Amino acid sequence: MPLSSEEFLAQRESRLVEELTDFVRIPSQSGAPACAPHIQRAAAWVADRLRRAGLENVAVLPTDGHPVVYADWLHAAGGPTVLIYGHYDVQPPEPLDLWISPPYEPQVREGKLFGRGASDDKGGVLSAIAGVEAWLAGPERPGVNLRFCIEGEEEIGSPNFTPLLRRERARFACDLVVSADGGQWSADQPQLVLSLRGGCGAELRVSGPSHDLHSGMYGGAVLNPLEAISRLLASMRAPDGRIAVEGFYDDVLVPTPHDREQLARLPADEPAYAAAIGVPALHGEPGFTAHERTGLRPTLEINGLWGGHTGPGPKTVIPAEAHAKIHCRLVAGQDPERIFELLRRHVERHTPRGVRSELSRAPGNSLPYFLPADHPANRIARAVLTEVYGVAPYETRVGGSIPVLSVFQEFLAAPAILFGASTDDANIHAPNEFVYLCSLQRTARCFARLLVRLHDYRGA
Amino acid sequence: MPLSSEEFLAQRESRLVEELTDFVRIPSQSGAPACAPHIQRAAAWVADRLRRAGLENVAVLPTDGHPVVYADWLHAAGGPTVLIYGHYDVQPPEPLDLWISPPYEPQVREGKLFGRGASDDKGGVLSAIAGVEAWLAGPERPGVNLRFCIEGEEEIGSPNFTPLLRRERARFACDLVVSADGGQWSADQPQLVLSLRGGCGAELRVSGPSHDLHSGMYGGAVLNPLEAISRLLASMRAPDGRIAVEGFYDDVLVPTPHDREQLARLPADEPAYAAAIGVPALHGEPGFTAHERTGLRPTLEINGLWGGHTGPGPKTVIPAEAHAKIHCRLVAGQDPERIFELLRRHVERHTPRGVRSELSRAPGNSLPYFLPADHPANRIARAVLTEVYGVAPYETRVGGSIPVLSVFQEFLAAPAILFGASTDDANIHAPNEFVYLCSLQRTARCFARLLVRLHDYRGA
Repeated sequence: MPLSSEEFLAQRESRLVEELTDFVRIPSQSGAPACAPHIQRAAAWVADRLRRAGLENVAVLPTDGHPVVYADWLHAAGGPTVLIYGHYDVQPPEPLDLWISPPYEPQVREGKLFGRGASDDKGGVLSAIAGVEAWLAGPERPGVNLRFCIEGEEEIGSPNFTPLLRRERARFACDLVVSADGGQWSADQPQLVLSLRGGCGAELRVSGPSHDLHSGMYGGAVLNPLEAISRLLASMRAPDGRIAVEGFYDDVLVPTPHDREQLARLPADEPAYAAAIGVPALHGEPGFTAHERTGLRPTLEINGLWGGHTGPGPKTVIPAEAHAKIHCRLVAGQDPERIFELLRRHVERHTPRGVRSELSRAPGNSLPYFLPADHPANRIARAVLTEVYGVAPYETRVGGSIPVLSVFQEFLAAPAILFGASTDDANIHAPNEFVYLCSLQRTARCFARLLVRLHDYRGA
Repeated sequence: MPLSSEEFLAQRESRLVEELTDFVRIPSQSGAPACAPHIQRAAAWVADRLRRAGLENVAVLPTDGHPVVYADWLHAAGGPTVLIYGHYDVQPPEPLDLWISPPYEPQVREGKLFGRGASDDKGGVLSAIAGVEAWLAGPERPGVNLRFCIEGEEEIGSPNFTPLLRRERARFACDLVVSADGGQWSADQPQLVLSLRGGCGAELRVSGPSHDLHSGMYGGAVLNPLEAISRLLASMRAPDGRIAVEGFYDDVLVPTPHDREQLARLPADEPAYAAAIGVPALHGEPGFTAHERTGLRPTLEINGLWGGHTGPGPKTVIPAEAHAKIHCRLVAGQDPERIFELLRRHVERHTPRGVRSELSRAPGNSLPYFLPADHPANRIARAVLTEVYGVAPYETRVGGSIPVLSVFQEFLAAPAILFGASTDDANIHAPNEFVYLCSLQRTARCFARLLVRLHDYRGA
């Protein structure tokens, strides 16, 4: 008699941790050219794990960038087809000196596994595979067709994934996407994610003299590019927190009272939130709560800023150039192309005399994503989460982006739901990223149960 | 019959170039801890060259930082004592990719020797030694006592030189300082430098969250430290170029009509000046010319600015910290201690809510220097320059700083004049620094002649 998926997963709990340890050891940073061999190793690792879980037609599909791992199980004639999405690439680990244990030497401490990618998204990918393995090995006759699609460029904006989807629509055809690149509210509280923000990336270069100048000889007679870039960046937002780029809010879907009520139900202790992240005070667009600012409203952030002498010791120069990486998070209604154009116009208008500026496109562009709370997929997901966690999920808006969700909607006409092993406190994209071991297990159980419940899913 | 100093120097012209090549090969960057052994080698090189020139009591004097090379020749009983000052340390060579030939592999092209330190100040130091050597070997009985004092921390603000002077006043006692750390207007046009600017260094740190945050999860709810530092830096200067730090100009000695007339006599083609340094337009304090802005007016420059992800590829973070290196150039009347205090107050008052800021002291503090045009030392220098170059020197104000000049004035009660091998176009503190070979030779001749003329110098 086959084991239930819960029993099957319970027996393999420690193996799951060992496997994640192996997976996190691979430094598969998609943004670092030097990590290309590790990207290949990570893709091969995922392919192998999918094969061992019982998936078929496992393939590492080449792209112009990093490969996509594909696998399927298509034996439920007449049943719906579900595509499970995730990514095996990770963010850079810097600053290294803030990690308690090295980012690529995973360590378990107090029920958490620490390492770059533990939550985002290696924990999610592995939990999904483990859940599917348990489901395939389980007592019920699988009534759902499955495809896996695990990419390697999520952290750099999936530049080659969209072209692949466009070329191979048939291969990825499905009725529903379940993304393993998501997470729950906390280790014990599930959530149903109704929307994610989109993105618009840009890089700003301000140039003045043709080479670095001696600040004594020239200081006072030329505009310092570092001063100019400071002025230009400061001009993009009013001191009160409102973005000052003309037209930036024009297309934003105004939050309904219902949207705001749902967010108001979430636990919110803003002083505790500020204390937890270590800021002296929260700051943002006037008239909105922190949940609304991150979930329903767009933002413009400077991710990096540099120029001149940044090493130890003094160097009294007026540097030739200054640079900034800018990235906006967009909400329903906004379009990254239009936002880039508005930024470009803003830079053009606000560049002070005495320097030149150039705004160029950068990775990180995506449409915002939104799926209504009463969509059939959200109803099933709500039921599964309630069963596994024992409490109903919160209905949330995520401030981050999963660009491919909009891409799936556009190319496969398939809605998406999010299941994942991450939690709000997991330090993703930051030092000391971790995943709760109990979240790994629960996520695997969610995937196994979801597939059972989806037997008679037919979409909206 | 001994050779005249001109003949002596003419015979050794190519040797001078070979010696400078040797000297520039030593990467004696005072700000880089890794260069400590090269600092020692450079000091030993200078000591050896002084010995070979006929100087006595040559010593490499230890300090808490880099050593000072001392030498003397004290056989002119009753004659004045002249102290020749220079430095054997150099600025960092970065950015390396802009050098045509590597900074520490000197190359002669079109009558110029290229390399870090070629002009600032290895060319000056070597020319001074060569000039003294010629003078000692010459036909006239030397009537001046000489001391050499070549330090290794000029480029980091001479932190250990002042304590040494204070401890060993007697060793450095003199009637006049001649600094070899100076230069002429051009290869053919000499100048008499009447003033130099002082300095005030500071480092600004702005901190927000206790660690880098995911810009999707938190973007919109917290003040980004990179935005905050941009706002703070932009607040330090009005868009029209006037420094907006309260009280900054309070102590500035207002330039007299005579000061401004002298500067107005200098060649000034502002469009050509802008084109030569590659800026689209000059920019600075309203109501002043470029010569006045760099010579008679103070400035506040950002020498370095950094925070967040500055490497290749995207990383969508709100960084925990942002940093800037700030350095002001001060003019007669201003005091670095008071300016630092004004900056500190400005930062305190303008730090936006939502971040913390801290302004700390940094190297590069010095008093401004000024010696009137009709001082006896300036009269003699004017005569020497006119003889060697065949034209009268311009009377100029230098925007850079030579902090030790004020220190000599304070501890040795000695005025200073500036002779050196550099020129305005020599790319000092920048890539492709060079020295004209003809300037090396002329500078050596100036030193030899100056010593002859100083026989009956008795000060002001």
